Amino acid sequence: MTREWLRTLAHKADLRERAGLRRELRPRDPGDHLIDLAGNDYLGLSRHPDVLSASAKALFEYGLGAAGSRLVRGSTAAHAELEDALAGWLGVPSALVFSSGYLANLGAVRALVQPRTLIVSDAHNHASLIDGIRATGAETVVTPHADVAAVDAALAAHPGRPALVVTESVFSVDGDLADLPALHTAARRHGALLLVDDAHATGLLGPAGAGGVAAAGLAGEPDVIVTATLSKAFGAAGGVVAGPAPLRAHLVDTGRTFIFDTALPPAVAAGAHAALTVIRGAAGEALRAELTTRAATASARLRAADLDATVPAGGVISVTAPSPQAAVEWAAACRDRGVAVGCFRPPSTPDSRARLRLTVNAGIPAGDFAHALDVVVASAPER
Amino acid sequence: MTREWLRTLAHKADLRERAGLRRELRPRDPGDHLIDLAGNDYLGLSRHPDVLSASAKALFEYGLGAAGSRLVRGSTAAHAELEDALAGWLGVPSALVFSSGYLANLGAVRALVQPRTLIVSDAHNHASLIDGIRATGAETVVTPHADVAAVDAALAAHPGRPALVVTESVFSVDGDLADLPALHTAARRHGALLLVDDAHATGLLGPAGAGGVAAAGLAGEPDVIVTATLSKAFGAAGGVVAGPAPLRAHLVDTGRTFIFDTALPPAVAAGAHAALTVIRGAAGEALRAELTTRAATASARLRAADLDATVPAGGVISVTAPSPQAAVEWAAACRDRGVAVGCFRPPSTPDSRARLRLTVNAGIPAGDFAHALDVVVASAPER
Ligand SMILES: Cc1ncc(COP(=O)(O)O)c(C=O)c1O
Ligand SMILES: Cc1ncc(COP(=O)(O)O)c(C=O)c1O
Repeated sequence: MTREWLRTLAHKADLRERAGLRRELRPRDPGDHLIDLAGNDYLGLSRHPDVLSASAKALFEYGLGAAGSRLVRGSTAAHAELEDALAGWLGVPSALVFSSGYLANLGAVRALVQPRTLIVSDAHNHASLIDGIRATGAETVVTPHADVAAVDAALAAHPGRPALVVTESVFSVDGDLADLPALHTAARRHGALLLVDDAHATGLLGPAGAGGVAAAGLAGEPDVIVTATLSKAFGAAGGVVAGPAPLRAHLVDTGRTFIFDTALPPAVAAGAHAALTVIRGAAGEALRAELTTRAATASARLRAADLDATVPAGGVISVTAPSPQAAVEWAAACRDRGVAVGCFRPPSTPDSRARLRLTVNAGIPAGDFAHALDVVVASAPER
Repeated sequence: MTREWLRTLAHKADLRERAGLRRELRPRDPGDHLIDLAGNDYLGLSRHPDVLSASAKALFEYGLGAAGSRLVRGSTAAHAELEDALAGWLGVPSALVFSSGYLANLGAVRALVQPRTLIVSDAHNHASLIDGIRATGAETVVTPHADVAAVDAALAAHPGRPALVVTESVFSVDGDLADLPALHTAARRHGALLLVDDAHATGLLGPAGAGGVAAAGLAGEPDVIVTATLSKAFGAAGGVVAGPAPLRAHLVDTGRTFIFDTALPPAVAAGAHAALTVIRGAAGEALRAELTTRAATASARLRAADLDATVPAGGVISVTAPSPQAAVEWAAACRDRGVAVGCFRPPSTPDSRARLRLTVNAGIPAGDFAHALDVVVASAPER
């Protein structure tokens, strides 16, 4: 039986190999000089001196690990101060920090579902949202991507039931922005809650970078719940659920991915807090302006080269590849020429299209960024 | 409807309040001088100078956040070196690091379940294992705690099906040790896989602290899969899945909580690696000896005071409290006298018993530890 198990795994690996679906973990060391169009460190804050020094200070004050759940031992002043700052910045009554965006999403979805809840979920939603939805066992309608009318129809078809609409703001796959005001109108019309994963917009969009929900004027609405991650524009790690104060209390009392998980290391919380201070300030404003310019230029440059590139609402551009195999080869060719790009292939794409996924990074030198785009274009498959 | 939602949350909070089930997040600052019998920093490594300096070094080399999934951007040399060291130490062909123990467990369970798999799960298993099991939707038999005969019977009742037995080694609730050799015999007799969450034993039990599986002589068995966390004896954060190489490849290619999650910060990985070096060496041996002595003395001291304390296999001792309310008051009385203890109440206990949960910490001064035990005894409810 054991042999059978290992044989099954080997066989599955074989099938993936033939379908061009193996993945490779390529270790990078600090001295690899790839230009980064793959990571989500949009503003370059992972290396900001304020972030590094705040993190190092907390490291030596608190030690490395939080040593336990927030409830038992881990809720340091670094966590509490970060949460207060996040809530104020996002314009919501309260925020709760988790050890990752993934676990924040699992916790948020679970907390918002009651026995008869209907979930309406965008087809492009992130794996962590999908896992959270599946874990509830709730009846779920997956609506076509960015189709507000379909959301409205799904809600209308199930009147009188508690309902939850789940979306991202800037979508991680193609970098487009959900029509949040229209989604909110539809949700409110039917008395549904709206959960927005703002992972790829916090730090980038909205007043003081407060994200897609704030940009849409929905900050603090009592029927809107925001999740976000501290691992992207913040250059750190961790996740957050933000919304009405009773939601936070509910998560503290009953959220399994909060209660039964070791807290985010205090040094990471402190670094994220320092990043937030940069994001809210003049330096953050300047970085956002640079990001916006780069995003527009980059998309135009790719389209001018006849590539099928999306127009980014934040810092994500996707470029269609002719096949999964071609996507892998394209990404490898970029890497050989010193540029790291993301490569999204089915089945981990929401449709059958393979894509390169490029992220705009305001933290790298402008010349490097322009050169990297040239490399992407020059390495493109024959069209 | 929104008002209704917030009213429902408030109402539920009210019910929890009356049942004595509210939880409080009490921020600690680095200057709070509580003696820690609550956290899981068993060997005190979260503050070990080697851990701090390795972590700080990686912080300034790599920046704070990993900036992306291990596959896209985050697989630094710090991650790869940690994994090699973990695999060698655990005596398994391969190991894969996740951003938390919680996400490692979700990923491991999912990877081990095929369409017709039967899961047999110990009643005391951790929330992350239970969530992972539920997420698979597989038929599951929950066996009474530590009941190998029940596991055997459950497997025998479903012959010819792929099966997975799930257990902890040292259980997080009461600190007792599963009979791993007997479980493995039962699993193998029926051709089942055995998944062992070694979170509370790695660093503490076995040769060079390699954990409960190694202590049971099962390291490297092809039908045994080990998960562990870097957030306890390692004093860091993160999780690991260890086992046959094809399992690692399978997780890299298909594990959602690996692929769609930002990598553990390199500085945390580097700190965990430094902790592992301490754990494997003479200093680790000495810390383990100290922990064993303290655990035995502590349990004896509590029992001598007529308290219903478990005998710890590692560093966890649970002490029965007469009621949830009494447990909360007991823990508060300890805190007022300068001692942090854990407090486990239903429904987050696997049975109806409320408990204080004490952890033995070899990293705090011996006098403090003895004094803390006196406080726990002196604060106990009337018997
Ligand atoms: C939209 C979205 N939500 C959630 C997450 C998960 O966040 P984290 O990586 O912090 O776990 C990610 C990416 O990782 C994401 O892209
Ligand atoms: C037995 C057990 N498994 C898994 C976990 C989860 O590990 P982590 O806190 O690293 O997410 C914990 C505790 O947190 C645990 O006690």
